[in-house]
Amino acid sequence: MRLLKEKIVSEGKVLSENVLKVDTFLNHQIDPLLMQAIGEEFANRYKDAGITKILTIESSGIAPSMFAGINLGVPVIFARKRKSLTLSGNLYSSKVHSFTKGETNDISVSKDFIGSEDIVLIIDDFLANGQAVLGLLDIVEQANAKTSGVGIVIEKGFQTGGSMVREKGIRVESLAIIKSLADGKVEFVEESPSI
Amino acid sequence: MRLLKEKIVSEGKVLSENVLKVDTFLNHQIDPLLMQAIGEEFANRYKDAGITKILTIESSGIAPSMFAGINLGVPVIFARKRKSLTLSGNLYSSKVHSFTKGETNDISVSKDFIGSEDIVLIIDDFLANGQAVLGLLDIVEQANAKTSGVGIVIEKGFQTGGSMVREKGIRVESLAIIKSLADGKVEFVEESPSI
Repeated sequence: MRLLKEKIVSEGKVLSENVLKVDTFLNHQIDPLLMQAIGEEFANRYKDAGITKILTIESSGIAPSMFAGINLGVPVIFARKRKSLTLSGNLYSSKVHSFTKGETNDISVSKDFIGSEDIVLIIDDFLANGQAVLGLLDIVEQANAKTSGVGIVIEKGFQTGGSMVREKGIRVESLAIIKSLADGKVEFVEESPSI
Repeated sequence: MRLLKEKIVSEGKVLSENVLKVDTFLNHQIDPLLMQAIGEEFANRYKDAGITKILTIESSGIAPSMFAGINLGVPVIFARKRKSLTLSGNLYSSKVHSFTKGETNDISVSKDFIGSEDIVLIIDDFLANGQAVLGLLDIVEQANAKTSGVGIVIEKGFQTGGSMVREKGIRVESLAIIKSLADGKVEFVEESPSI
């Protein structure tokens, strides 16, 4: 997705060979127009998949998911990273380790919102080690629902998450795939020109 | 806002005299069309206020803020509830106690995203004890920016947050104000019919 890649190049900060900071438009300050374009792109790629629910994870997955939800005409559910007092019992949950934050969280989704009749699109901001997506896939499986695919804003193609998820036979649509962050420079995986 | 109140009456669950659960459309599963209508309503109420930034707090403030941001043409910043490894230093921060969750969090916003030239609209899902809004106001003050006002999806009018914020001279626009949750029933504060 050209607009997104241009934004990554112009505003992203390469902090190391593994870390790209995109907090000017994606995960601290958010650019709503870019999120709208991203949501439309996810919706377009999955428009014939019969999606009934979008599942994401707090917090940075919520913004792109909202616009995908508007365009697909389906509700968005965000997994919570720990239990709150008003969200007790009746939960699907899974453990997710964040390498960025150096901690493991329980993520959970109320059983009220995903059932065996659902066809789920999983959306997240980043795909790196794949832990969050694997946790969300686990929750969809617990619900006996079907995962139609995954929509990722930025995939770190040099980390293992993308291949781990694709090897399970899951469709993954990443709007920007990063090949390398070496020498402080963002290099993308080549894609077909239409994307 | 009629659409919102109808949704609260039809889907909200009164768990006690203090607790209203709205996780079918606002803070776990999210209804994107309702969020779009809410965002448009906030934008309409603040359209002449010269807003340059929307400030909210993760996670449930993000969805309504996105659509307010689209309609006002401004970026959305969400305060984080704890520091992450890629968001270190250079922060405004404030302490916020959540009575619902029974815990105190540091909330923080990068100094990169709010400055003295900014006119800020604060948006959140709930206003009850006012702690989150007071923390966000504190952050805007630390940035020497101006708060134009606050936009709240659901205000618990029987708790003290609303009057605490209004007594500071801050404009508060709440789209639904709850007078009482007694006897398992949601009663709203009367408003002018146009709202």
